[in-house]
Amino acid sequence: MDAQQFREFGKAAIDLLADYVENIRDNDVLPSVEPGYLLNLLPEDAPEQPENWQEILKDFNQTIMPGVTHWHSPRFHAFYPTGTSYASIIGNMLSDGLSIIGFSWLSSPACTELEVLTMNWLGKLLGIPEEFLQCSSGPGGGIIQGSASEATLVGLLAAKDKTVRKLIRNDPTLDEDEIKPKLVAYTSDQCNSSVEKAGLLGSMKMRLLKADNDGRLRGETLKNAFEEDRAQGLIPCYVIANLGTTGTCAFDPLYELGPVCNEADVWLHVDAAYAGAAFMCPEYRHLMRGIELSDSIDVNAHKWMPVSFDCSAMWVKDGFDLVRAFDVQRIYLDDVKTENKIPDYRHWQIPLGRRFRALKLWTVMRIYGAEGLRKHVRNHISLAQYFAKLVRADERFIVEPEPSMGLVCFRLKEGDIITKKLLEKLTEKKKVFMVAGTYRDRYIIRFVICSRLTVKEDVDYSWKQIKDEADLLYTDKIHTKAQIPAIDQIVAREICEKSK
Amino acid sequence: MDAQQFREFGKAAIDLLADYVENIRDNDVLPSVEPGYLLNLLPEDAPEQPENWQEILKDFNQTIMPGVTHWHSPRFHAFYPTGTSYASIIGNMLSDGLSIIGFSWLSSPACTELEVLTMNWLGKLLGIPEEFLQCSSGPGGGIIQGSASEATLVGLLAAKDKTVRKLIRNDPTLDEDEIKPKLVAYTSDQCNSSVEKAGLLGSMKMRLLKADNDGRLRGETLKNAFEEDRAQGLIPCYVIANLGTTGTCAFDPLYELGPVCNEADVWLHVDAAYAGAAFMCPEYRHLMRGIELSDSIDVNAHKWMPVSFDCSAMWVKDGFDLVRAFDVQRIYLDDVKTENKIPDYRHWQIPLGRRFRALKLWTVMRIYGAEGLRKHVRNHISLAQYFAKLVRADERFIVEPEPSMGLVCFRLKEGDIITKKLLEKLTEKKKVFMVAGTYRDRYIIRFVICSRLTVKEDVDYSWKQIKDEADLLYTDKIHTKAQIPAIDQIVAREICEKSK
Repeated sequence: MDAQQFREFGKAAIDLLADYVENIRDNDVLPSVEPGYLLNLLPEDAPEQPENWQEILKDFNQTIMPGVTHWHSPRFHAFYPTGTSYASIIGNMLSDGLSIIGFSWLSSPACTELEVLTMNWLGKLLGIPEEFLQCSSGPGGGIIQGSASEATLVGLLAAKDKTVRKLIRNDPTLDEDEIKPKLVAYTSDQCNSSVEKAGLLGSMKMRLLKADNDGRLRGETLKNAFEEDRAQGLIPCYVIANLGTTGTCAFDPLYELGPVCNEADVWLHVDAAYAGAAFMCPEYRHLMRGIELSDSIDVNAHKWMPVSFDCSAMWVKDGFDLVRAFDVQRIYLDDVKTENKIPDYRHWQIPLGRRFRALKLWTVMRIYGAEGLRKHVRNHISLAQYFAKLVRADERFIVEPEPSMGLVCFRLKEGDIITKKLLEKLTEKKKVFMVAGTYRDRYIIRFVICSRLTVKEDVDYSWKQIKDEADLLYTDKIHTKAQIPAIDQIVAREICEKSK
Repeated sequence: MDAQQFREFGKAAIDLLADYVENIRDNDVLPSVEPGYLLNLLPEDAPEQPENWQEILKDFNQTIMPGVTHWHSPRFHAFYPTGTSYASIIGNMLSDGLSIIGFSWLSSPACTELEVLTMNWLGKLLGIPEEFLQCSSGPGGGIIQGSASEATLVGLLAAKDKTVRKLIRNDPTLDEDEIKPKLVAYTSDQCNSSVEKAGLLGSMKMRLLKADNDGRLRGETLKNAFEEDRAQGLIPCYVIANLGTTGTCAFDPLYELGPVCNEADVWLHVDAAYAGAAFMCPEYRHLMRGIELSDSIDVNAHKWMPVSFDCSAMWVKDGFDLVRAFDVQRIYLDDVKTENKIPDYRHWQIPLGRRFRALKLWTVMRIYGAEGLRKHVRNHISLAQYFAKLVRADERFIVEPEPSMGLVCFRLKEGDIITKKLLEKLTEKKKVFMVAGTYRDRYIIRFVICSRLTVKEDVDYSWKQIKDEADLLYTDKIHTKAQIPAIDQIVAREICEKSK
């Protein structure tokens, strides 16, 4: 493929993607394919001879597209959003066009420096305390990781390294291999699966502490856990606080957890993967009160900001904690010695290689401006409020807990089984996509405003699907006289156990 | 930014990238900027108001570009190549345009299935034994990881989990916390830094065993290490064999390491990050003799194949080994149960989220065809051979060890200091970029054919820079009568220590 063909192919692909967004509402949000569909459609072997790009675009439309779940459809309300935007697509394309590997300053100075710059920009925009930013005078700084999972793991490994070093410094007779199995990490039972996985990957016991009735991990609970474990000879090492839990978007009180961690000299990591973007708006910053007491913070720019995956913004209070844990030097990686606090990011992360991810963050922040980004967040919250109002106006439904950010959880008053049935029916019809959760042992449906394209009429559309389906269920029920609510508790328990 | 502006911005960016490639030889390979240059050029805060795309492209050209190291310039000979191509840029753009997160089959069936398909395609193309492929009847399969670092770590964690389970099954009185600190990983002292880092991250002791005179880890050495460690109560758990070491592109003999590992029931991971691509050409497959004895294999499609970072192709003999180590289930991740061996890739990797990376692998394999990909590899090898011939024709130089794949290592016969000086001078001039290595305690310069654009005339150009600089050094030397070679051994030792 020569440059001329690239110009043609590239421009055709740009048009395809613009058309896709402009007509995204024409698709069912979920695809109508069976497992194995694509393996049956495409050849079993790579072609021996080169093919032309027109064939590829044709196959893309005819075979790939029918198997796509449309995450950016305004009818997609599952999980939490994943970001995208025109600006991000082009920022990433520029990165791909340069295709540099930014593991050291010299390997592409612009890559490291634009990352420092945009992480300062974003940190200030979110109201992250200055000591976490590279533009402060201290050792803090920001880095783009691949995912919140990775950030949680990086924090855990740094905390482990720091704790082991501290204990051995205090008592040189101690042995590393004896210390490590005693280290414990803590989070709430509302944590994302990736948090629990970090414990698994980083070989650290992870206790999922019981959240309170509102899904929040409280200071007292954490303090008691520390004491219980200490009494058994274990060593508290790492705490992951959740700002915006996956299930119900609850916010752990950092102002309670922070003092407990600081007093015990335990690393506090803040996972604000989704909800962190809301801190761009000053009216939501009270939800991170106590953030200055943490050691590391992670906000997925690729979730609620219009930046494509992967772009997980992580800040640490002391970058040397990461470097000490991760530095493995080699002659072929010999770098210029930089006096002025420009980090060698390879020592701040798990892989050696790294893409020029700051470019998409940069294009997005410029094309939207701070104003546009705040508007995006506020728009989602106000659409969620609007949806909650619609649900509440229907007396068969109950909204609980209180909507938080772009998430509204609801259920049918009549019980868990019928609520579950409702979600199953809706998923079968593929017009809207939501997933289940639990709240106070009840089965709930999670409805999230996800798409950057969503307007009020889209919310009306989604609500109509839900309402119509409920109408059908109730009609069926009257006909069959089913006694549904009686076994609710069994279902609820089953769900809760599965979600642990 | 609306769809129309995206069409304009996108097409302008496509043209910019095509122009960049067409004129890449006009740039010095290394940029002429000082640390901090970009931080001084760009504003300290994100813009409050949206900006237009023309401003962004202007700044990209005027501020980002001057700080880019041109990895795809035919004068870039450092490290190993990182892949790119027109086909890859567009494949990735399509992925970004859909911006789906493929953590389960339902979250976008096409994402999982195209990954299964392309990993079958690539596996067959490389001659990976069938039992490692999803198209076989067994539990083997391929997955795209982010980097060789990640693949090494995934293998290590799976090996750890498997070993612990096995030991506890055999003796249920054993305690996990007692077993883990005794586990040991092994690789050669020629390994990439990322391999050593995997040990650090995965909390496993890692022994860097002495390679033989040709940079290869031998079976006997490994066997002895197992025995030594067992005698001390330790437990051999994981071995990383290198097919194409970073320093000199040496190949560990799998036919020696495999039987030792199999007999001891130790997981054998094959890191063929760079050189693995050569196995597309049957004439190089003898270098992976014994591959069927391994448990996992990693080849970076984003290194020597024209696929952009990140696309690290990993195959395992038993996918359940990964699932058992990584599975953390949650209600909101509830998935359709697939009967037909379609993996839930989130249990095969570290993060929860994953991009649609198979798209770029698919576009590249179709645009190039198997034939085009083999041609790309053979062309690099033949250009490296041509370069070696040029160096050998100059009696001041020595080529050693024997060139391997696209890598030629060379030095000035007169000694380490003058060779080091030569590299420093060349780097200062920024016309060609190479990095240092060591071979048998001598300082060497590593010259790698990296760019997909390289032709014979480019090699002539690079060689001329080297030769001319050597001429200058020798002229200076005669003038200053410096006695350079005398302290060679000191330099060599220093380098070797740094590279450990």
